Amino acid sequence: MPRTRNDTPFVTGMRGHRVRNIDKRIARRQQILLALAEVLAVKGYEDATLDDVAARMNCSKAVIYYQFKSKADVFVALVEQVNRDAIARLREIASTDASPEAQLRAAIDSLVQFGWQPLDYASIRVRRPSSLPREARIYLRALDREYEDIFTDIVRRGMDTGAVARRNPRFVALTLINAVLSVFRWARPGGALSTDDLQREIPAMLLNGVLTPGGSRAEDGR
Amino acid sequence: MPRTRNDTPFVTGMRGHRVRNIDKRIARRQQILLALAEVLAVKGYEDATLDDVAARMNCSKAVIYYQFKSKADVFVALVEQVNRDAIARLREIASTDASPEAQLRAAIDSLVQFGWQPLDYASIRVRRPSSLPREARIYLRALDREYEDIFTDIVRRGMDTGAVARRNPRFVALTLINAVLSVFRWARPGGALSTDDLQREIPAMLLNGVLTPGGSRAEDGR
Repeated sequence: MPRTRNDTPFVTGMRGHRVRNIDKRIARRQQILLALAEVLAVKGYEDATLDDVAARMNCSKAVIYYQFKSKADVFVALVEQVNRDAIARLREIASTDASPEAQLRAAIDSLVQFGWQPLDYASIRVRRPSSLPREARIYLRALDREYEDIFTDIVRRGMDTGAVARRNPRFVALTLINAVLSVFRWARPGGALSTDDLQREIPAMLLNGVLTPGGSRAEDGR
Repeated sequence: MPRTRNDTPFVTGMRGHRVRNIDKRIARRQQILLALAEVLAVKGYEDATLDDVAARMNCSKAVIYYQFKSKADVFVALVEQVNRDAIARLREIASTDASPEAQLRAAIDSLVQFGWQPLDYASIRVRRPSSLPREARIYLRALDREYEDIFTDIVRRGMDTGAVARRNPRFVALTLINAVLSVFRWARPGGALSTDDLQREIPAMLLNGVLTPGGSRAEDGR
């Protein structure tokens, strides 16, 4: 949201001074988010400070305050970006011609694959700290829900085609999402299980439990 | 641990004055844990205060400080009790003659069943706050691990008998445990899904994914 707010008035020329400023500003913003993600992975949310973030960027805190009001503000921007990206990927998966079962598999694959990205990893591990301002938590909750709603739709369509066993679709969706995300809370990059291992084992463990024994495999030929 | 530290010197007579004092002290201790659990369910760990706990007990904070040093101290006692109870239940399950598959099912049933108890619910929802003192977190982590180790043993024996599909046993155990616990993070008591619903659907969703297609059902006749 802050990006939209600040972009428009500056965009004046194709390669003009102001456009380059915006590029630089966006790049800087990404550096800040990434630096916070790295600090979060080590210290957790409560102990992380903007001093840590600035130290990791080898710059002064003023560089951060030029774009953000507080640690909470940077964190919200981080989760916002992670969620918007995940929502975009899931919308794309849900809009293909593939069967709901194949979509469900792709959705889980996508969660596993992106869980190791620094921003995603920080967002998953830290979840939504209770010390965040209330309105920030409500805003992030709404973004989480947007993702869950698309996922639930895929599950529901799977139930309609008979590929997914009939249960409360929201319950199935939330259990699948959270089961995948919970792996990233104890697994470590470079730990006993590689991304390949997780990518192979997680869908197998979780999907077998929700698919109907017969119909599913026939349908998308996997 | 505090209980043992304080018990022994007081126990002097069968129905003597001091024994009754201990009973009262233990009862009071339980009231404090329960009151914290109720506060945590509403406010989360960061916002909960010992003033809230005292207010809920309709007593002065001195009653709490008589047995505990701080909010963190009460929380550690709460999680300690929850984990020791869960470990005892799991040890009992693991020591029966039932097949590993039946033990796994019982272990998951037990997690689902106890997840709604006020102390367990608070412990699951709040998890292990990063603002807890470091040594408290290390101590609780060790208790968590004790539970996970017994669970992993059941999974490993299931793999040895062929009932459970062969994967990294610790990965399977942690994924199952966390998948169950994650349900309690979004489900609410009195919400759309009753304990009966959860008790029926969670094992079905999760166990189908880890059991081998053939061998399992034959083995314990379920």
